[in-house]
Order: sequence, then C-alpha cells, then structure tokens
Amino acid sequence: MVNYLGVNSVRQLVQQVGLAAFLQQLVDAMEHDYRRWESFEKSARHAIHSPGGVIELMPTSDGELYCFKYVNGHPKNTAEGLLTVTAFGVLADVDTGYPLLVSELTLTTALRTAAMSVLVARHMARKEGPGSHTMALIGNGAQSEFQALAFYHLLGVRELRLFDTDPAATTKLARNLQHLSLPGLHVVPCTSTAEAVRGSGIVTTVTADKRNATILTPDMIEPGMHLNAVGGDCPGKTELHPDILRRPGAPAAPDGRGARVVVEFEPQSRIEGEIQQMPADFAVTEFTQVLRGHAPGRASDHEVTVFDSVGFALEDFSALRTLHALLHTHPHLATPIDLIPQMDNPKDLFGVLQGVPAPAHPTGTATRLRSTPALQEAPTP
Amino acid sequence: MVNYLGVNSVRQLVQQVGLAAFLQQLVDAMEHDYRRWESFEKSARHAIHSPGGVIELMPTSDGELYCFKYVNGHPKNTAEGLLTVTAFGVLADVDTGYPLLVSELTLTTALRTAAMSVLVARHMARKEGPGSHTMALIGNGAQSEFQALAFYHLLGVRELRLFDTDPAATTKLARNLQHLSLPGLHVVPCTSTAEAVRGSGIVTTVTADKRNATILTPDMIEPGMHLNAVGGDCPGKTELHPDILRRPGAPAAPDGRGARVVVEFEPQSRIEGEIQQMPADFAVTEFTQVLRGHAPGRASDHEVTVFDSVGFALEDFSALRTLHALLHTHPHLATPIDLIPQMDNPKDLFGVLQGVPAPAHPTGTATRLRSTPALQEAPTP
Repeated sequence: MVNYLGVNSVRQLVQQVGLAAFLQQLVDAMEHDYRRWESFEKSARHAIHSPGGVIELMPTSDGELYCFKYVNGHPKNTAEGLLTVTAFGVLADVDTGYPLLVSELTLTTALRTAAMSVLVARHMARKEGPGSHTMALIGNGAQSEFQALAFYHLLGVRELRLFDTDPAATTKLARNLQHLSLPGLHVVPCTSTAEAVRGSGIVTTVTADKRNATILTPDMIEPGMHLNAVGGDCPGKTELHPDILRRPGAPAAPDGRGARVVVEFEPQSRIEGEIQQMPADFAVTEFTQVLRGHAPGRASDHEVTVFDSVGFALEDFSALRTLHALLHTHPHLATPIDLIPQMDNPKDLFGVLQGVPAPAHPTGTATRLRSTPALQEAPTP
Repeated sequence: MVNYLGVNSVRQLVQQVGLAAFLQQLVDAMEHDYRRWESFEKSARHAIHSPGGVIELMPTSDGELYCFKYVNGHPKNTAEGLLTVTAFGVLADVDTGYPLLVSELTLTTALRTAAMSVLVARHMARKEGPGSHTMALIGNGAQSEFQALAFYHLLGVRELRLFDTDPAATTKLARNLQHLSLPGLHVVPCTSTAEAVRGSGIVTTVTADKRNATILTPDMIEPGMHLNAVGGDCPGKTELHPDILRRPGAPAAPDGRGARVVVEFEPQSRIEGEIQQMPADFAVTEFTQVLRGHAPGRASDHEVTVFDSVGFALEDFSALRTLHALLHTHPHLATPIDLIPQMDNPKDLFGVLQGVPAPAHPTGTATRLRSTPALQEAPTP
C-alpha cells in the first residue's frame, strides 16, 4: 500500500513535532541535499499557463528516491475564497518505480519555502550590526506567517515590520503572531513598503500579484541589506526593480557584477526569477556553491545581497523524504491507500479487474484497518 | 474535497458499467479528443531513467481541464512479484488549478491502451478478407487480456493466436479468456511467434523486454497485415525489425514511404517508438490526421500498416475525464480526501496549521462519512 498524508495529518504531524523543530528538520534536510547537488537529476519545471494562472510539475530524483510536486499559482483565486497556491506531491522508489507516499504539499510548501529562506539567509545575511535582527515582511498573505516564524525561531529575528496593500492581511498576520505570544518578538505594522523596509537588515517579499511589479525600488535599499525575494516566481511575475539587481553606486562584487544574486537552479531561475528581467549573461551564483564554500554569500557588511527564490524541486524532495521519515515515529498519521494493485502474479493484472481485491493492508495495523474501510471494500458480487 | 478512486473502486466501476461498455466509452472519449487535437497543450513526457527502469510524468491540458499521469516501466519488477507498469493520475480544473480527481491508472492505462489500439485499428486494419477477424497476440503478460477483449468486443476479432516466451503467461491468458466463455472466440496457443502471426490480419505485440528486441521479422509479415506495436515504448525498447518499417518489396505508399506508420504524437514517438530505429526524416502520419480524413489509414488491401503505439497523455486525459464523468452516476465509489486545505480566509493558510481542521466532507454522504474517518480526524489537543 501507498501511504497518504492529507492536510489534517500534516497539520497534526507539525503540531506533534513542534513547528520550530519541524522547520529545523526541513532546513537540515535541504542543507544535506543541496550539499550533494550533483546527485540530483535536475530540470526546469513543466508549466502549463492559462489566463487564470499556472499549473506546474516539479520532478527530481537522486537515483534512489524520486519525487514530483504538483503546484498551481492562481493569484485571482483569493477573490473566490480559494488559495493562490495549492500543492501535493509523491515520493517514489526509483528501483521499482512504485510510489511510497502521496502527501498534501500546500502547508508543506509554505513550511519548506520559509525554511529555505532561512537556510540561504544564514549564509548571506549579516549576523550582526544595525537591523540584523529586524525583518521587513512585504506581502502578508498565506506565506507570511511561515516566513515570520522561520526567521524568528531559526535566525533570531526579533522585530518584524509588516506591510501589505490589503490592511486586512496585515491585521491577520499580526493577530496570528500575537496569539503565539513569542518571547521578545516586536511586531510593527507599517503604512508603506518604504516604512517597513527602513532600517531592516532583512527584507522578505512574499507578494502574490501575477505581474512585473516593483515592490522594492532602489531608493529603499540600504547598504548591507539581504533581500529574500520569494514572491516573484514565474514568467511575468517579479517584485524587484531591475536597478536593484544592477545596484547602481553600490560596491561591485569581486567579479564586477552589479549585484550579488544567489539562485537555486540557474536554468529555472532565468525563466522564473527576478533575473528574468536581466540579460542572459547577468551573473548569478547557485546556492549550492555558497553552501559548499565555493563562492561567498556576502563580500562585505555593506554589500546588498539578494536571494532570488523561486522554489526548486530539490526542496520538495527534502520535504517529502522528511515527511516519509517522520512516519516511522508517527505511523498512526498515515493512511494506506490502494493506489497501486497488489497481486500474486504480476502478469495477471486482468485478475485484479476480475477477481478478489488485493489485500488492502498487508502490514495493516488496527489503526489502518479502522482508517480505510472504503479503500478496502469487498468486491461487488 | 478531492475525489479519490483506488484500484478497488475502479475495478468495481468497470464491473458495474461492464467491460465492453467501459472500453467503448474510452474509445468514444479518445476519438472525441483526438478530433480536437489542436485544443491540447502537447509535450513529450518527462522521463527519468534508471538502471531498473523509467519513471515518467505525462501532462496535458485542453485549457479547461488539466491532467497528468505518473507511470513507471520496470521490466525487472515481474521477477520480484511486482508490476512492470504501474500508474496513477490527477485531473484538475485549469481555472483554479485545484485538483478534482486522484485515480489509480494501472488498470485504467491497460484499458485505455487497448481501447486506443482498437480505435486506431478501426481506421487502419482491413475490415474483410482472409484473417481480418484473426489477431496474433505476442506477449501474454499484464496487457494481453485487455488487448484481446477490446478487439473481441469492439472489433469483432474471433480468433486469437497466442505466443509468449514464457509458456505460463500464455496459459494464464488462455485461462482468463476461457473463464469469460466468450461466444465465438477461438483461442489458439502457439509455439512460436511465426506460428501465431501466420494468417493473422492483425498482429498485436505487447512484450515488456526493455531492449531493442526483434519480436517481428520481415519474413513473418504478410500483405494486408495491420501491426499493432504496443510494447516498444521507450528509448532502447523496440519490437519490430527496422526492415518491417522499410517494408522492402511492398507497394510503396503514395508519398513513396517504405511503410505506412501511424503514430500518436510525432515528437514523442521519434524518441520512444519503433521509429526511434529510423532516420529523423522517416515519414510518419499522426493518428489525428487519419481520424479526421486528412490522411488515409490504409491505401490498399495489400498494404502493411503499423500503429507505432507508445501511449500519449491525451489518452489519459480522455480516460480521467471518463472516470470523473462516471462518478456522477457512481458517486458511492469515490472517496473524498483532504489533499487540499479548505479554509474561510484563503490568506490565512497558517490558520489551517494552527486551528480547527477543514471540514472533511462539505458535501459528505453517509457513505463518505463512513469511508474516510482517518481523513477527518479531530485535531490533537
């Protein structure tokens, strides 16, 4: 049987593990996987665009495990009471091609995206100095709490400066953070992006508008800032004014680039990232190079650094194998489903159609028996 | 909620609809969709190869519905008691990007592949004359019963000549067909491919060996034969001797080609089909052209025709929308699963992680309530 993890199960898993601990496990898994970059079969995601949004498939494999994520991006959805981004994914065994786990990835993507932002910021943002524990959070929608909490728990951010064009979103974010009563956290709702950004050592943009927006303009940028640009993640969807990437007047990086821009997987980021606004020869650094010490994440305290985040399949691989591993200690949260036939004679697929149904729980526990009657229905006469 | 159709549910659905009727619905859906070829976003499937096999993703969309199929091909699996090919897929709403249906596609792929073979044969195989109601079935594994029954029920085949290098597979196929006691069907187990092919108007090859095999050689081919080459479907996996495609001595087709070869989607078939053995300029015809009368399926009773079947995403699209439509009349077979969060405020994804779980059965029936307790678990304290 294939294990299924729905929204309610992942929610319970995170609650039982603890949010900070769960985020840290994601950071550790992604760091481990980004360090073995060459082990992965990498490709730009497959996208089908429509007037309302985009539907993407993000596959990857390390030769032992395979995974893909299905993810949509429909900014108009919120007006209809639906999520802009929903996702689910599958982890499979490369040796047999059999799926192992089907999981929701909407909550999980929000968690892994925030964890990835922290992992990168650890290598690029200033550790000390003015504003190093202050983060501006521009865009206070579905992703914002996850960014806020990941930076609070894992990077020591203690002041969050919030702005969203929709004041209700900011109110929602502030309320959710207040309810958590996090020691030492100072939450400052702001009336403009400029006000939120001023004095912040880290600026995180998580807006959802599907257009070439200019959430941040050069006049807002201060020396030493680390920009965690998360919202611009598909063709025609950016958040940074291109001059920020060129950074006029800023000290050039050693190789003479206008900006130090770190990406996940360059071929995909050229299509989907902030750098889609730049010429094809605009120099960028892949994060794995920074992580492995082959390139600096930051050259000086004055340098402005940019993580041009779009989300790469490897991060979902790390997340799915983390969920899969956690099922060893939380087996009761998984529901076995009959996604794949089980049979005595693999050449007799027709026998499955005709005859006795496959045993639905070969390793079934009482929990599993209770959990999936409908998936174990007796054959119709 | 997203509907889930597992192996047991699809089995019951086919049993309740009736195999012949179900196959006909698949043929009708595929004919409808192949006629509107230009409506679909088409791409060669995404494949990740490993020593043991291949894992593929096959996405497509008509602008209203989106689907993808996950399918593996691991010939070595049978030795381990596992299926060579397993599959599952998802149907989604393009407008919102939300998934509608998650379904097993192992049984369904076998059914749609056989239905596609029949749809094509209707336009390429001779209707009358010697052997027109006789089919050789080379390779008697998991796909063979489905091909046999589709051609019996929908194309009037009344003699099946069986051969497999594994006699146990032939015995299994013959036994399964016998148990169905199909009026007028004559089943002839043979001791060689040549014996099985001799006098057959239709030759179906469904072998699983992952290599460039030569199941059929030119000396076996008789004028007027239609070759339904199903087994050769990925790089390095073919079944026909290339001279069969060149067809030395046979009357050339009007455009001077050596053979009349029909494919599903040319760019994919060049990579995966029998024609991977031929030069890039080897002329082929896409089935949609034949279906719409833009090209002949057969020029004469003497011509040898070849359907170089590899399986295209459009066929899974047709199958998934057929399954989805059948749930209107068989709702009790679907299990709602919480693959996607349901929430009042789409900007408050964090609220899902924190708070009350989403209602697991907004349109839930008693059946559904019974069917998914584990997917509706109360939050942990």
